[in-house]
Amino acid sequence: MHNTPGNLSSPDGHASAFDRVAIIGTGLIGGSLGLALRARGLAREVVAVARSEESLRLAVERGAADQATGDIATAVTGADLVVLAAPVSQIIEHLQAIAGVIRPDCVITDVGSVKGPIVTAAEQALPHPARFVGGHPLAGSEQRGMAAARDNLFEGAPWLLTPTPVTDRKAVNDLERLATAVGAAPLVLSPREHDALLARTSHLPHLTAAALVNVVAQYAQRHRDTLQVIGTGFRDTTRIAAGDAHLWADIALANAEPLLACLQDMSLELDALAKALRDGNRELLQSLLARAQHTRESL
Amino acid sequence: MHNTPGNLSSPDGHASAFDRVAIIGTGLIGGSLGLALRARGLAREVVAVARSEESLRLAVERGAADQATGDIATAVTGADLVVLAAPVSQIIEHLQAIAGVIRPDCVITDVGSVKGPIVTAAEQALPHPARFVGGHPLAGSEQRGMAAARDNLFEGAPWLLTPTPVTDRKAVNDLERLATAVGAAPLVLSPREHDALLARTSHLPHLTAAALVNVVAQYAQRHRDTLQVIGTGFRDTTRIAAGDAHLWADIALANAEPLLACLQDMSLELDALAKALRDGNRELLQSLLARAQHTRESL
Repeated sequence: MHNTPGNLSSPDGHASAFDRVAIIGTGLIGGSLGLALRARGLAREVVAVARSEESLRLAVERGAADQATGDIATAVTGADLVVLAAPVSQIIEHLQAIAGVIRPDCVITDVGSVKGPIVTAAEQALPHPARFVGGHPLAGSEQRGMAAARDNLFEGAPWLLTPTPVTDRKAVNDLERLATAVGAAPLVLSPREHDALLARTSHLPHLTAAALVNVVAQYAQRHRDTLQVIGTGFRDTTRIAAGDAHLWADIALANAEPLLACLQDMSLELDALAKALRDGNRELLQSLLARAQHTRESL
Repeated sequence: MHNTPGNLSSPDGHASAFDRVAIIGTGLIGGSLGLALRARGLAREVVAVARSEESLRLAVERGAADQATGDIATAVTGADLVVLAAPVSQIIEHLQAIAGVIRPDCVITDVGSVKGPIVTAAEQALPHPARFVGGHPLAGSEQRGMAAARDNLFEGAPWLLTPTPVTDRKAVNDLERLATAVGAAPLVLSPREHDALLARTSHLPHLTAAALVNVVAQYAQRHRDTLQVIGTGFRDTTRIAAGDAHLWADIALANAEPLLACLQDMSLELDALAKALRDGNRELLQSLLARAQHTRESL
């Protein structure tokens, strides 16, 4: 953050403004962040990086960036904030691409759904690892791309930040203020806690929804009425399974260890339900369902 | 159906009208059916049966019935259609209560979520088993009771009918027309097919959502930030877990055998995902997720 006199601050006077922000990746999150920064005057200049001409054109046309370029080095040169907003599998590659080019005082963050491997790679690749803070705004959806981007995407969303013992406290503060400025609620936790948490609240639900759809798809091959009688319950339960398989395979593989532990927990819960059902144990079955009912009602 | 001259037909002239309809149970489905029948003039008279004074009063006040009574025999005497709309575990009891009282030509149906045990019980209990047609409008939700009832609840919903070889074809036709008249899409299948289908598209999703909530609830006991970072994906995936545990335990136990087969299928799907993840087999993992993605997108 550069609140010294003469540096930019946002029009409403709060201290979350950056001078030059480079956003690498113009999908839903990167695009929405560009829109939010520009709509709220939180940066003097936003530069977007995308791979296709079409994406570059759209980023500027939609107002998500002042400039757009296909070249990462051009974008990050002189930036005081770099946001890595590509899919998980590309972020590590982008860390290597920016390492030799960024200013020593540049703050770097990312928006990947998995933090352990990215934070480790950042601390190995970057010349000033203290200036990297892993980040993850919980604002994804099954919608994708700049077409779905909007400047209020982060309003009310948790924005997780995952510093490590080597991380500069000021960089964390800068990003907490940025998250707050775009309407999100910053929450600091370790990369390990993040990955265990998201394995349960996001990655396991995705795999479960996919498994459920596949159970029904298999049955539907032999019973053609099946897809006609899909109710709202099934639709809700499986909506996230329509998410991009490539992106989700990336996420699951990057978070394999915690996710395997959750899949094990899930099997145990399903086994407990099956056992209660097989034994005709109404009391146990109802208590398992009641526990879920009360937890879900409390959300 | 009583389309002989002199009998009632609906104001818009289609042939789905009944004379006296008794609806036993004034929950979401029974209440909404009463509202729909009366709003569309599909019965000369609707009599509702409920257990509490409060429910009886509300049924008449909301316009779901012309009269309401706590006495099943009073309600069904003279009725040409009886709809059993109580929870699954009470329907069998109600079949016994109506058996000695109904007119020989009375059509009887139910709205229970499980059909095998109800159809078997009906064919054993009723003096004219041919006049019973198992039914199941797919219009439930996690909302409950007359308070949530509405006369358009069935619009666009599948209404499953489950005749057996002994069922009178005319009774099936009467109920197909009734379902159509309240805006639903009737679909005929066997009780066994119904139960296998619903096990997959409704009961398994419920148990899966409950298991998922319980995995997270268990983790949240040790990690208090957990419930703060619940995203929309988790909310959608687990919405149905807020359904009433008592009702769902009833349904699951009544459909135990097909449901246990589904739980087995679900375990195999989750095991396949876990194995792909453990082996780092991106190609297999992505193909399993892509299968789900494409099926879900097609709904």
